[in-house]
Amino acid sequence: MPVQVPKYMYVKSKIKEWAATGEIRPGEQVPTEHQLAEQFQMSRQTIRMAMNELEHEGVLYRVQGRGTFLSNGFLSGKGTDISHRIIAVVTTYISDYIFPPIIRGIETRLSQDGYSMLLLSTNNDHQKESQALESILQTPIDGIILEPTKSSHYNPNTRKFLSILARRIPIVMLHGSYVELGLPCVRLDDEEGGALATEHLHSLGHKKIGVLMKTDDIQGKLRFRGFMRMSTRMGIDILPEWIRFSSTEETDENVSQYAKMIAGVKSEERPTALLCYNDALAAKLLSAFLELGISVPDDLSVLSFDDSHLAEVNHLTSVKHPKYDMGVKAADRILTSVRIRQHNSKETVDDYIYPTELSIRSSTKRIATHSPSKMP
Amino acid sequence: MPVQVPKYMYVKSKIKEWAATGEIRPGEQVPTEHQLAEQFQMSRQTIRMAMNELEHEGVLYRVQGRGTFLSNGFLSGKGTDISHRIIAVVTTYISDYIFPPIIRGIETRLSQDGYSMLLLSTNNDHQKESQALESILQTPIDGIILEPTKSSHYNPNTRKFLSILARRIPIVMLHGSYVELGLPCVRLDDEEGGALATEHLHSLGHKKIGVLMKTDDIQGKLRFRGFMRMSTRMGIDILPEWIRFSSTEETDENVSQYAKMIAGVKSEERPTALLCYNDALAAKLLSAFLELGISVPDDLSVLSFDDSHLAEVNHLTSVKHPKYDMGVKAADRILTSVRIRQHNSKETVDDYIYPTELSIRSSTKRIATHSPSKMP
Repeated sequence: MPVQVPKYMYVKSKIKEWAATGEIRPGEQVPTEHQLAEQFQMSRQTIRMAMNELEHEGVLYRVQGRGTFLSNGFLSGKGTDISHRIIAVVTTYISDYIFPPIIRGIETRLSQDGYSMLLLSTNNDHQKESQALESILQTPIDGIILEPTKSSHYNPNTRKFLSILARRIPIVMLHGSYVELGLPCVRLDDEEGGALATEHLHSLGHKKIGVLMKTDDIQGKLRFRGFMRMSTRMGIDILPEWIRFSSTEETDENVSQYAKMIAGVKSEERPTALLCYNDALAAKLLSAFLELGISVPDDLSVLSFDDSHLAEVNHLTSVKHPKYDMGVKAADRILTSVRIRQHNSKETVDDYIYPTELSIRSSTKRIATHSPSKMP
Repeated sequence: MPVQVPKYMYVKSKIKEWAATGEIRPGEQVPTEHQLAEQFQMSRQTIRMAMNELEHEGVLYRVQGRGTFLSNGFLSGKGTDISHRIIAVVTTYISDYIFPPIIRGIETRLSQDGYSMLLLSTNNDHQKESQALESILQTPIDGIILEPTKSSHYNPNTRKFLSILARRIPIVMLHGSYVELGLPCVRLDDEEGGALATEHLHSLGHKKIGVLMKTDDIQGKLRFRGFMRMSTRMGIDILPEWIRFSSTEETDENVSQYAKMIAGVKSEERPTALLCYNDALAAKLLSAFLELGISVPDDLSVLSFDDSHLAEVNHLTSVKHPKYDMGVKAADRILTSVRIRQHNSKETVDDYIYPTELSIRSSTKRIATHSPSKMP
């Protein structure tokens, strides 16, 4: 007696057969669970199991409220082994701040190998990330470059990521990782950046350092960790009343409050220097200071991260970000991952962590010798 | 002309003087901001600055709605330099599961050096952690052993931790860290544990592995990361439909649903093995299976973490946890940290990461050769 194949496997092979013979064409709807259950005289449970597996193999895709369709990737029975020459690029933002040069770097490197980009942004919002992943699951792509969304929170989209990985679509992370997925990441050494920034302020005589940090991303946590480490090493006191953490949504309000707090106390009661999460936050702070008559660097020094055009315009001392080069590096790594996958190789792609350096401008200066921190 | 001392520093020194001369005694209320502003003829802003600094130095403490008091730690002008021989121990739970032996280990080691424990639990709830930190800020202690609460979320209590660190009270973390604080941690190598568990299942022929993970703690994320890494290395397919993440609050409901899902499909459509976050979760799963007539390990293998009494009772194969020894190690490290601090030394305390091994019992077994995964 031949080994009996489980029913759901039979259903799977029939659907694949229809696809291979052109009975259903890519993009066309397949019969509903109910119709298939009738046709095969099987339980809907069994049909669902078959459909789920086909979905995870990338043969079928579902559209909420519309039905299940044959994937474009399914041609002549080859499943997802075809190269579509498309890489999905999912970032928190696309056209603002440091993102244009990063994306230009990605595009330049991808186009060298004849790949195009599918660009999606999450606005640092989990719901939008979920929608982006839905789009990706319905589009024939070869790989993904992804910047995580609120990476220091629990990620509600983990199962969507697993569905992508189950289809053997490689992912390279940008700027930070989701710990649980352990995917290769191209990023800055944010902790060292925080330490370097703190060391620079200390070298200018600053011992009372305020911090304005964003903490919904792992980058902010690591930058702060670097600040804490260097403060301990240099004997700099931690001033909890001058340390403020904000989510993306709270940043504007907190920056404006913080500026008012600074303006509200005498100069000897203020921190002498401020470490900011990034140039965008620092630029907001500077414009609040301008209105309040606080002068940088005369009243206090300000240092931030990313060395963006905002740092140039505002003369901010800032931790450098490789931008274009980071885009090239991320693209390079996803192309390698795609090749590894196509050859079914066991190779893996490593993290790439950029060392940090400072771009020193006029927002930081040596503390005046009559400062209160020098008093007996 | 002598250098003029900032007004707030004058206020600080006056309050310290009252304390040193016994004009205010430890535990007694100090005058209100308003009264002090009148008495010194200064702005409330200035008084507040002085009080804040005294609070951060541990000279004063505030009780919400009651007022500000002289700390017990402030005796004969020595500030917080006195050793109280008390270590605060803050864990998610105290009397359940693996916590009794851990706490016994802590207690044994502390008592060797003449220290007592102040025991507080958070029930893995941020609000309760906040209350625990409030208690600590009002009690004269020398150091803290702290197990983080929901360490994979944003921690709303970061500023309270900074207030503790600003008072130079050392903290040693247990089981996992808050990334942004970069504190020394005594923990298991959770990622290796996840990899080891997966390798064991693979060595028994399992290729369809379900996962029930908790993800509000960093441990769960790391265990899952280890599972992902070893799955990739061993060519084990990821089955998103059989991978479930739960918060502490969702665990009971999700375990019961998962058991029903398993019971609802044919054996060839099930995973052949399940990896569980810990023994407590696995024990719940086993009792749900018992009701549903699913037999472990005959219908499927189950593997979990912590090697607790629940693993013994339920014959669970489980990743070992050092328990008592981990308590001793954490106590040892906090005592070292206290000594370093007392000597104003620049030394630091490192992480201690336990390597993992398995305790193999009868809940895991070699997969039967007629299993569907062996079919053509």
